[in-house]
Amino acid sequence: MAPLRERSDDPVLPDPPRGPLHVARARASFPWKELALFWEGEDVLRFKKTIFSALENDPLFAHPRGSRLSVEKYQELNFLRCKRLFEYDFLPAGDVLGSLPKVLALIECLGMYDWSLAAKFCLHVLTFGSAIYSSGSERHFKYLPKIFSMEIFGCFALTEVSHGSNTKGIRTTAHYDPTTQEFIIHSPDFEAAKFWVGNMGKTATHAVVFAQLYTPGGRCHGLHPFLVQIRDPKTLLPMPGVMVGDIGKKLGQNGLDNGFAMFHKVRIPRQDLLNRSGDVTPEGTYVTHVKDVGQRFSESLGSLSAGRVTIVGMSVVNLKLAVSIALRFSATRRQFGPTDEEEVPVLEYPMQQWRLLPYLAAAYALDHFSKSLFLDLGKLQQGLLGKDRSVRQAELGREIHALSSAGKPLVSWTAQRGIQECREACGGHGYLSMNRLGDLRDDNDPNCTYEGDNNVLLQQTSNYLLGLLARRDQGGARIESPLKTVDFLDAYPDILGRRFEGSSPEDLLDSSVPLAAYEWLVCYLLRESYQRLNQEKRSGKSDFEARNNCQLYKNLWTAVLQGNKVLERASWWSEFAVNKPVIGSLKSKL
Amino acid sequence: MAPLRERSDDPVLPDPPRGPLHVARARASFPWKELALFWEGEDVLRFKKTIFSALENDPLFAHPRGSRLSVEKYQELNFLRCKRLFEYDFLPAGDVLGSLPKVLALIECLGMYDWSLAAKFCLHVLTFGSAIYSSGSERHFKYLPKIFSMEIFGCFALTEVSHGSNTKGIRTTAHYDPTTQEFIIHSPDFEAAKFWVGNMGKTATHAVVFAQLYTPGGRCHGLHPFLVQIRDPKTLLPMPGVMVGDIGKKLGQNGLDNGFAMFHKVRIPRQDLLNRSGDVTPEGTYVTHVKDVGQRFSESLGSLSAGRVTIVGMSVVNLKLAVSIALRFSATRRQFGPTDEEEVPVLEYPMQQWRLLPYLAAAYALDHFSKSLFLDLGKLQQGLLGKDRSVRQAELGREIHALSSAGKPLVSWTAQRGIQECREACGGHGYLSMNRLGDLRDDNDPNCTYEGDNNVLLQQTSNYLLGLLARRDQGGARIESPLKTVDFLDAYPDILGRRFEGSSPEDLLDSSVPLAAYEWLVCYLLRESYQRLNQEKRSGKSDFEARNNCQLYKNLWTAVLQGNKVLERASWWSEFAVNKPVIGSLKSKL
Repeated sequence: MAPLRERSDDPVLPDPPRGPLHVARARASFPWKELALFWEGEDVLRFKKTIFSALENDPLFAHPRGSRLSVEKYQELNFLRCKRLFEYDFLPAGDVLGSLPKVLALIECLGMYDWSLAAKFCLHVLTFGSAIYSSGSERHFKYLPKIFSMEIFGCFALTEVSHGSNTKGIRTTAHYDPTTQEFIIHSPDFEAAKFWVGNMGKTATHAVVFAQLYTPGGRCHGLHPFLVQIRDPKTLLPMPGVMVGDIGKKLGQNGLDNGFAMFHKVRIPRQDLLNRSGDVTPEGTYVTHVKDVGQRFSESLGSLSAGRVTIVGMSVVNLKLAVSIALRFSATRRQFGPTDEEEVPVLEYPMQQWRLLPYLAAAYALDHFSKSLFLDLGKLQQGLLGKDRSVRQAELGREIHALSSAGKPLVSWTAQRGIQECREACGGHGYLSMNRLGDLRDDNDPNCTYEGDNNVLLQQTSNYLLGLLARRDQGGARIESPLKTVDFLDAYPDILGRRFEGSSPEDLLDSSVPLAAYEWLVCYLLRESYQRLNQEKRSGKSDFEARNNCQLYKNLWTAVLQGNKVLERASWWSEFAVNKPVIGSLKSKL
Repeated sequence: MAPLRERSDDPVLPDPPRGPLHVARARASFPWKELALFWEGEDVLRFKKTIFSALENDPLFAHPRGSRLSVEKYQELNFLRCKRLFEYDFLPAGDVLGSLPKVLALIECLGMYDWSLAAKFCLHVLTFGSAIYSSGSERHFKYLPKIFSMEIFGCFALTEVSHGSNTKGIRTTAHYDPTTQEFIIHSPDFEAAKFWVGNMGKTATHAVVFAQLYTPGGRCHGLHPFLVQIRDPKTLLPMPGVMVGDIGKKLGQNGLDNGFAMFHKVRIPRQDLLNRSGDVTPEGTYVTHVKDVGQRFSESLGSLSAGRVTIVGMSVVNLKLAVSIALRFSATRRQFGPTDEEEVPVLEYPMQQWRLLPYLAAAYALDHFSKSLFLDLGKLQQGLLGKDRSVRQAELGREIHALSSAGKPLVSWTAQRGIQECREACGGHGYLSMNRLGDLRDDNDPNCTYEGDNNVLLQQTSNYLLGLLARRDQGGARIESPLKTVDFLDAYPDILGRRFEGSSPEDLLDSSVPLAAYEWLVCYLLRESYQRLNQEKRSGKSDFEARNNCQLYKNLWTAVLQGNKVLERASWWSEFAVNKPVIGSLKSKL
């Protein structure tokens, strides 16, 4: 099949078909096409249209009515659809770095169709592929073409049955044997089995396996990634010594085959250690350019952030879909009215607006947050690939780690609550599977858990901010960051002196008022947590204990911090949501 | 099969098997058996044990692993299980009124096993059966034995495609034809098709159908219940003129066959009008002992409340199950620790306790609320059956309607949020289907919608309270109610003069402090809404408009009102949740 390219001879934004929604649409107080063009840009809009048209016109992507497929059939279909995506080749590998907005757009389009497909595709190309590209070296690049031709199919195996959040607790081992120049990958027991690994259940032929690296003499050098073949690409039968299978039905994303694997002394060539941060000589000596484990870890922060930033975008898509479904239903569903004859669309009720419009506003605000964060991440990764070891690069890595660690919780939780509100706002009809709100809720749910449990992640941001504050107090260093997201905190003593100014509803519609309130709250909670933490330490508590006892405080205000960033946009988007024509002011604000 | 009766020769509370949970259980600071006995009573505990043992030992109730059944197979199995319940006859019809706590216990046990089964059973016996018993008259009692032998299988058909909340908008018609002494049941179009009706999809042979009653001359007498046969009991094929089927997959409770039905001029005998509140003579004259439509409506409030009170109990069960699963997992799951060797159970982290223990406390508080409300409802229904037309009986009906209308939202929402928190608190493992948190969330979800959408229901309570306030202001009538839940509002001017007293964390653990704060908040919001409503009316707005514009206010404080009632218990239960031995003080407080 010939790869599809964008066509420019058809209108990028055709009028919607006339139907029950026409009345509501006709009442819009602003030109929706102008907004869409401004918000997405014609280039991205055309790209999305190309993708959707391709899927619409390909029978392989026809949704089986009522999603009544068995899990097995669904997973099989999902694999075939994934393979077809490589034939369409919407975004050739060469264009990726040059057009990041299209990368995000591609993920969003696939997710709007089905997250099981988007996940399967991204786990193979982005997670598995870029792990080889960014954690490996020239000797591994031979695998890249095989990835894009799907000659091999990959997965990323970090989590184990008993260890997810605490990656240092990972217990799979890789002992180096100089006599054969091989690593021996081994799972000591079932609790150390790799678990939850997307694509591993039935379809992956290769896995990037994280294991504790041991050199002769028994010295452990910590967690390293290894490329391990787990199945025969022809038969998909397990390789010798590999016990691999599907973990079973999940609450959602059941088109994705999440798997487990145990390794019984599986031998792989020395070269299959992904050796960017550390390597082993043929004789068995461990060599690394990275001075300490801490730096090696912070080097990997960039790739860790990628997953979280992507999840921010995934969650926004789910919120968009749910809000669109609920608003369209509410504009046509009539219930009660001034007389028994005349009933009113439920969207006209203040209660329904109060329930749904803030989520519409949030969808726009968070969509912008997601896009800008994705572009910032792109800059970070270009630096990593360019082997940029500057201080600024390291600072940027820490800032984006902190932003994605608080941004993922904020957006995934907002989407989860928003979808639930939309489900309820559609009443009984929202509880019918065919209306998709259930699938959205179930597919969005894991966004709160994988790539770092939301509550645990928030503490990453807490530690980042407490660290900045400590440096300021001790060395007098300014609180600032490459993206300037924390710069306002440098003035926290003054900010704490501020008083609330808002006195009328009009005041509160001016974003600067709630923004100032947020800044005060952040500084207040930051100082409280900081003092509490030091107090705990002075009272002789261990770092571990002290941090525990402050968890609540810390999480409270990191949640607030993100609210702050987003509110900046949310407040004037809420103006938009209640239909004021603000596109002009928008352009000035973005 | 011989009906099962309770046996008293085995211990009602055997020790749990020794396992990973033993360590945590051994640390309990109170005797759990004493608490269980005090909380449930030995009689109910034995009853529950009888039910669970029966289901455990019957292969028909063996859960298919991983719940991978097709919807069709699941519904078939659910029907067979329902039939088996009548053979077990855990609670003979004669004993029902005498042992209400056991009725609630039976529903809870069936729900703990599977809500699809509990719903199927209750919709037939309680909803369909008691509709015939309480809305019909002697001439309909012949159907009752057939219900308990499952010779006929029933459903309750009120909701239509286009009308759920607004029951007055129901458009199915029942025209009386004196020449044949029949009613002609008819659905004008698909929007008037009965929809969502539990048991109607595949298994019901008879339906209580609500339709607008017309007498010759075309006069409409409003909504009335009719008993209509929809299927042949032998073949389960539709009766002539009835188009009936399953509405398709839902987010949950897929073992229950929710259905739709359209009636094409279906003729039923005059006697099958359920004629408690109104009847038609053979000649076609409408007769009723009820003076006005309003009173006829308030007479039916009792039966409307029954569904909501039951849902309160259902939601509590879901919260109990989710909290138990999450707490047991958290007591055994270890992650991170003071040293790399030693990891601590996640339940030891303040964050995990902060997330889960309030829901444990709520489970106890709401369980007590549910039981007391269920018993109050029993008194109301005994009055109805005894044809008690006293003022107090009417007042009690209105109070329980208001309590159940705010209690269902409070408890179903608390359960929904609690289950989601439990899901997330179990991390990835909480996302595996086999751990049931997904089924609980999906099965609990409709509790927020059916028997009245939560947000719409809250307004019922608002109107009740605003009515009491209006009577006090106009006629100087005291604010009081049979169950005394609103009596404190009579002092609302004084309460509004109160100032917050709490100054230390200890103060706040004394339930009287937050309780006083709640009372103030309720009175404040009540007065605000009342003034706002009158203002709207004075400004010439119609009742409909005026009520709309105050929706938000009203709902805010009715939610608070319920919080108040529950907090009364929740606050000292939260003491319990943090493991203080309070059983003694409990006994004094209940």
